[in-house]
Amino acid sequence: MSVTAAQGFAAAGVAVGLKSTGKPDVAVVVNRGPLKAGAAVFTSNRAKANPIIWSQQVIQDGVVEAIVLNSGGANCFTGSFGFQTTHQTAEKAAELLDASAGDILVCSTGLIGTGDEVFRAKVLAGTELGIAELSEDGGEAASLAIMTTDSRPKRAVRTQDGWTIGGMAKGAGMLAPGLATMLVVITTDAVLTAEDADAHLRHATRVSFDRLDSDGCMSTNDQVTLLASGASGVTPEPGAFREVLAALCLDLAEQLQGDAEGASHDIRILVQNAASEEEAVEVGRSIARNNLFKAAIFGNDPNWGRVLAAIGTTQAAFDPYDVDVWMNGVRVCTAGGPDQPREAVDLTPRTTDLVVDLKVGSASARILTNDLTHDYVHENSAYSS
Amino acid sequence: MSVTAAQGFAAAGVAVGLKSTGKPDVAVVVNRGPLKAGAAVFTSNRAKANPIIWSQQVIQDGVVEAIVLNSGGANCFTGSFGFQTTHQTAEKAAELLDASAGDILVCSTGLIGTGDEVFRAKVLAGTELGIAELSEDGGEAASLAIMTTDSRPKRAVRTQDGWTIGGMAKGAGMLAPGLATMLVVITTDAVLTAEDADAHLRHATRVSFDRLDSDGCMSTNDQVTLLASGASGVTPEPGAFREVLAALCLDLAEQLQGDAEGASHDIRILVQNAASEEEAVEVGRSIARNNLFKAAIFGNDPNWGRVLAAIGTTQAAFDPYDVDVWMNGVRVCTAGGPDQPREAVDLTPRTTDLVVDLKVGSASARILTNDLTHDYVHENSAYSS
Repeated sequence: MSVTAAQGFAAAGVAVGLKSTGKPDVAVVVNRGPLKAGAAVFTSNRAKANPIIWSQQVIQDGVVEAIVLNSGGANCFTGSFGFQTTHQTAEKAAELLDASAGDILVCSTGLIGTGDEVFRAKVLAGTELGIAELSEDGGEAASLAIMTTDSRPKRAVRTQDGWTIGGMAKGAGMLAPGLATMLVVITTDAVLTAEDADAHLRHATRVSFDRLDSDGCMSTNDQVTLLASGASGVTPEPGAFREVLAALCLDLAEQLQGDAEGASHDIRILVQNAASEEEAVEVGRSIARNNLFKAAIFGNDPNWGRVLAAIGTTQAAFDPYDVDVWMNGVRVCTAGGPDQPREAVDLTPRTTDLVVDLKVGSASARILTNDLTHDYVHENSAYSS
Repeated sequence: MSVTAAQGFAAAGVAVGLKSTGKPDVAVVVNRGPLKAGAAVFTSNRAKANPIIWSQQVIQDGVVEAIVLNSGGANCFTGSFGFQTTHQTAEKAAELLDASAGDILVCSTGLIGTGDEVFRAKVLAGTELGIAELSEDGGEAASLAIMTTDSRPKRAVRTQDGWTIGGMAKGAGMLAPGLATMLVVITTDAVLTAEDADAHLRHATRVSFDRLDSDGCMSTNDQVTLLASGASGVTPEPGAFREVLAALCLDLAEQLQGDAEGASHDIRILVQNAASEEEAVEVGRSIARNNLFKAAIFGNDPNWGRVLAAIGTTQAAFDPYDVDVWMNGVRVCTAGGPDQPREAVDLTPRTTDLVVDLKVGSASARILTNDLTHDYVHENSAYSS
């Protein structure tokens, strides 16, 4: 159900040939209200795609009528022609929905540099077709249309106290903080102001999508959007809503991790007893970005030396000679020296649990990453659509 | 000739079984004077191997009699026993050379966590054997003994105005700034004070080894050492010496790049017209560390979008929509849009020239890196010696 699980939303996913495979490639999600509250967070990459530049303006007033998303082309670095394409997409949707173009968000994903006349024509056709096919059961179709190299759609739903949150996500590579090459649309029928939605979304992404660092590469097109219709008539308790939203975002983030391009391990890095949460994140991220460590995990090699070499590059408070490292439940390093033998560690399961105990404070953070594999190299050297 | 090209030096390389292959694994280089000036730069990783901790103390007074280097074990995170091994190595060399242990540098390279009783016994035996075999023609043997996954030794010699500089290097992976997993020993018969040597070495490494970023991974054991014997009797013109030393270091750095583990392309990234040299380096490094870009080059794919996505993560002064990107002489991106067609770029040669023109200033820097290949993943997932 994803984005149509909550009341007040309709969606569609259609195929217009942006993908050479003929699979669905344009999704539309419409908020039928009564509220039209929206919030979004965007890539922090300074190289921003045209839809990002557009959507950052649209979200300013917190009013969103609909969002149009396409796969099969990022419309990034496509010049003023590309920006006009995004603008025309919003105008087309606004005209058909009897709304203002300034209330239509646009997202694109695919190859950077793709955005010519053919691309424009197909996106506009998809917008028209998608709006014609809008349905309160269209969430599943929409989640399929935003996929690129994803092997499966990502969807999640939570219901509590009379309100529902549902969402869809795509992303399989270029997954790094400040979001990822990810597009996420979350809808809720809870009664929220745009300010509430913004605060809740920022909290939730900070502890979910921002902790997913599959390959250290930050995209130009990332956007996570939350739309609230208020159709349930229920005003949620803020803490409860925030908690459920964060859990749903983490669920989607873990689905992204589990489908990361070419990965053979999902690595969960827990950094504990750090001086602060920020430092725990910094240390975790240094490990998540260490190619040698990631290649070792691919080879089922519990090479803890590479963990220490990675965290030694950070400025976080800890003594490199008083750190414990655990892999899948086995303490392989303690106090600057080897502990249990490498042979005691079983790295054959897909899930790899790495725990780094810094022994200086009480803060912790979990970072999600993947291993570095032959298939990752293959998929990213051959990728061109 | 490497470290014995300059007058006043003797060296040896011997095999004591640290490597399972039986190849040479302990090298000794001795300065016979008349000067005993030394300088060294070390990894900036906070996780430092025992030989680094030891050598940082030895170099304080600028007097170095000899350096002992072993491959086949990093002696890092091996506890106080490991530090004692390094100390005993220096004492053994001092005793046999009639010197002070405080004037003996020690370097180790290999797997982190390796440094048990067997390792100690072999390193001490190698120190003794190496000193027994010291020769003024021993430079070649020494350069072979420091190799780990290197496929070939790295050596360079320059002679000018009556003085000579020679050097050897090892390193094939974990090559990143603040040096790399590299051990480098450079000798000269020029008349230099320790202060001169230190200043010249810091300048030379800053524009050579520090610009080599093969895989973004910083080692725990890196050390670059310069020893001066004064045996030529010639005091060099400082500017000339610095220039020749920098050229020799760049020569060795390029040899390291050309032999990087599993690489199929040597990528030279020239960032030009930056606001400052520091920003040019920052921009170049962001590209050198982008796995998606590096995988694309492996696949001979001129994916300039990944270049822009990489540099967009930096804080350097430039307009992402006013940047030119050239690949092997073809301008593929200009002013935020596609320029020449991808098909015009031939990425089949091993050397790949990437030029990024930021168009904001007049500073430039060149960063050396490699592509991300199947073989890199393979070698680093299987590596265990």
